[in-house]
Amino acid sequence: MSAFPRHLLGIETLEPVHVQTILDTAEKLREVLDRPIKKVPTLRGKTVVNLFYEASTRTRSSFEIAEKVLSADSLSIAASTSSATKGETLLDTVKNLEAMNPDLIVIRHAASGAPHFLARHCRSAIVNAGDGAHEHPTQALLDAMTLRQKKGRLEGLRVAIVGDLLHSRVARSNLWLLTKMGASVVLCAPPTLAPPGIESLAPLTHDLDQAIAGADAIMMLRLQVERMAGGFLPSLREYHARWGLTEARMKKAKKDALVLHPGPLNRGVEIASEVADGRYSVILDQVTNGVAVRMAVLYLLLGGSQEAH
Amino acid sequence: MSAFPRHLLGIETLEPVHVQTILDTAEKLREVLDRPIKKVPTLRGKTVVNLFYEASTRTRSSFEIAEKVLSADSLSIAASTSSATKGETLLDTVKNLEAMNPDLIVIRHAASGAPHFLARHCRSAIVNAGDGAHEHPTQALLDAMTLRQKKGRLEGLRVAIVGDLLHSRVARSNLWLLTKMGASVVLCAPPTLAPPGIESLAPLTHDLDQAIAGADAIMMLRLQVERMAGGFLPSLREYHARWGLTEARMKKAKKDALVLHPGPLNRGVEIASEVADGRYSVILDQVTNGVAVRMAVLYLLLGGSQEAH
Amino acid sequence: MSAFPRHLLGIETLEPVHVQTILDTAEKLREVLDRPIKKVPTLRGKTVVNLFYEASTRTRSSFEIAEKVLSADSLSIAASTSSATKGETLLDTVKNLEAMNPDLIVIRHAASGAPHFLARHCRSAIVNAGDGAHEHPTQALLDAMTLRQKKGRLEGLRVAIVGDLLHSRVARSNLWLLTKMGASVVLCAPPTLAPPGIESLAPLTHDLDQAIAGADAIMMLRLQVERMAGGFLPSLREYHARWGLTEARMKKAKKDALVLHPGPLNRGVEIASEVADGRYSVILDQVTNGVAVRMAVLYLLLGGSQEAH
Repeated sequence: MSAFPRHLLGIETLEPVHVQTILDTAEKLREVLDRPIKKVPTLRGKTVVNLFYEASTRTRSSFEIAEKVLSADSLSIAASTSSATKGETLLDTVKNLEAMNPDLIVIRHAASGAPHFLARHCRSAIVNAGDGAHEHPTQALLDAMTLRQKKGRLEGLRVAIVGDLLHSRVARSNLWLLTKMGASVVLCAPPTLAPPGIESLAPLTHDLDQAIAGADAIMMLRLQVERMAGGFLPSLREYHARWGLTEARMKKAKKDALVLHPGPLNRGVEIASEVADGRYSVILDQVTNGVAVRMAVLYLLLGGSQEAH
Repeated sequence: MSAFPRHLLGIETLEPVHVQTILDTAEKLREVLDRPIKKVPTLRGKTVVNLFYEASTRTRSSFEIAEKVLSADSLSIAASTSSATKGETLLDTVKNLEAMNPDLIVIRHAASGAPHFLARHCRSAIVNAGDGAHEHPTQALLDAMTLRQKKGRLEGLRVAIVGDLLHSRVARSNLWLLTKMGASVVLCAPPTLAPPGIESLAPLTHDLDQAIAGADAIMMLRLQVERMAGGFLPSLREYHARWGLTEARMKKAKKDALVLHPGPLNRGVEIASEVADGRYSVILDQVTNGVAVRMAVLYLLLGGSQEAH
Repeated sequence: MSAFPRHLLGIETLEPVHVQTILDTAEKLREVLDRPIKKVPTLRGKTVVNLFYEASTRTRSSFEIAEKVLSADSLSIAASTSSATKGETLLDTVKNLEAMNPDLIVIRHAASGAPHFLARHCRSAIVNAGDGAHEHPTQALLDAMTLRQKKGRLEGLRVAIVGDLLHSRVARSNLWLLTKMGASVVLCAPPTLAPPGIESLAPLTHDLDQAIAGADAIMMLRLQVERMAGGFLPSLREYHARWGLTEARMKKAKKDALVLHPGPLNRGVEIASEVADGRYSVILDQVTNGVAVRMAVLYLLLGGSQEAH
């Protein structure tokens, strides 16, 4: 087992033992969120910069809450109000922030590889909060935490990942994580939304019923409605008819199958309301676990002392 | 006396005894704001989300300062940068935030009833920071606190509420609160800006001099200049001439009458500068009391322990 | 020696002894930024409002980090989301904020003199974070701190300030500070970007090589690319050729000359990348020192007690 890495850039390069460490730590820290006083001094005096070049309520809020619960100081910067608009390069912006001595930078950026580029050139620990269509590692970790919590294990699970595989960093990170941890993955997408060559990583089907059959968990991906304009899809109605997860379809899944979704939901498009709000759904557990996973990542990267929580 | 409610949704449904409790608590907490160290640990480890679907400097700042003084952790989300732009429903957005385990959500929304809808579906305590043209309860409470501070009581006071009654949530909340607490209210508005049937709640006049005569306090409402375009008014000049509060008009009021305004001021429209800055004006007291009232509401809803301040 | 002033409005009116006090305090506080726990309780319970009427990542972030390190509570307000858009006057906005009892207001505003206007009418301590083309005192202070750190003194240094002198508050504040502290300044700008009469304050040349010759430090100013549209400049290419700082040009400077830039950089316009990233450059030291200088200013204006750090 090698040392825990200095950055969290993606799942692809993460060792299974480190995934395990993050999930174990998150499970321990999750309990803090249920306390009446949700505050531990673990990261007091550590500064975290949340640098978001793409709008995000849920991921940013989740990181901010994780930082506050751990007593870190946090500074959030949205791209639209940043020097980016003054023509500064990403590296200059980050070098500048870094000169203010933060301990860790959380970055979301539309360019794949942006966090890796920063990790090569900066001293601060870097956490990838989503880079283009590449990776979204904390999302995959919170999904894994939710699966493990509900099913007791990841190994041997059969998980269907369904929807817009072409543009989804969530799908990519989950695919790496699940296969790395011994789960088997089935991919399902419309032909226009499956990246060429993806079959080399996991079996691909265009038939949702086939993907669902025998699955322990079904991860629905958000359909970016903008894709319509791109000509990827004929209509939302047809998308829902063929690739939307409905109550009727869930009958073909295992009795105890779980339904996951990274949010925000397009109700009536990739998922029917009765499924999103139904007994299979663990969508809100995912959100709670997201805070715990981010607490764990911050804690492990910033070397918080054990005695503090 | 029933238990203090779980939410602060509006004044209409609040019992007089609870109004009393909020005002008494606010008066006690107000003293913290004058200390050299403006900080009490009362709400340490409590998380408050400020979810603003409409722009607001003063109300949001007031809540944020109240939260910081009480040592709560706060997370502010502006609608323009939120998932709302990704087509998520209000309920889904709030359910998601709630899954991150905040203790209380402060919401401002353009739709009347939005906070009530959330209170029915959520576990968190909900505070209405303004919902459409419906209610703005903390504004009415801070107005009442200011009146009580300056006049020693609410009962028996004669209060004129003047201006755009049709679109004003401030007017509505104040009307409920004042009549509930035994004050008498006179309403004054241009005919186009008085909602039909309002006379059933309090006497209405279109004549400002008549409204002012004998009043202990005059609450001026902000004129939304956008109303011009709606055809509600011929010109700002005429509005000022007929319904603007000037020094000359104040001569018809009681000698010790108070002038209130929720801000931001349209100087020279609904209020003349010499009145806004003059001896009658308690406009800046209202702002200070606003922080105290919000501290009291947060404290009472979050059940802060008595020993902490 | 007179008492330390109540506000930091500009360098022009600051006494040399107070510049000294700020720099000495900043040097002491700077060490906190290198600690594993970057947090001192010095300003606990003090509230600072950061009121930015112009976008700014670096200055706002620098102030916010300084506030957090000193344990102050801070509230940041960006003009675009503020009541400013509702037609409220600057004075009303600030009077309102002030009624919430903050201890200090940091303001950036496009109008020269805005902070001075507020200082005359408000109780709070005011810090100018940039007012129009007038002053940017904390920038000049961090530049001076960097020079003193690297050269051991300010007195007797020869400093070239190069670029758009006409629109630069950074140039103006630095000119006051350096001459006040006994350094000699040479100004260099294209003829269209030198304000008339500036020669009465320091020698002006249009020839960059001449400005550089014998300089201990070269302060490059950011070229606002918008100036092109204003007809001040023929092309960025020509600007770079005549007034851009390149490796070749640096050969004419002293061996140990320093290069400063307030950021954000226009690489290939006013400064070549090999200079910005080269051995002369102290650009990132400036950023770190910026946090320390702002900590010192907040500390001195808020009368933090000596025992706290």
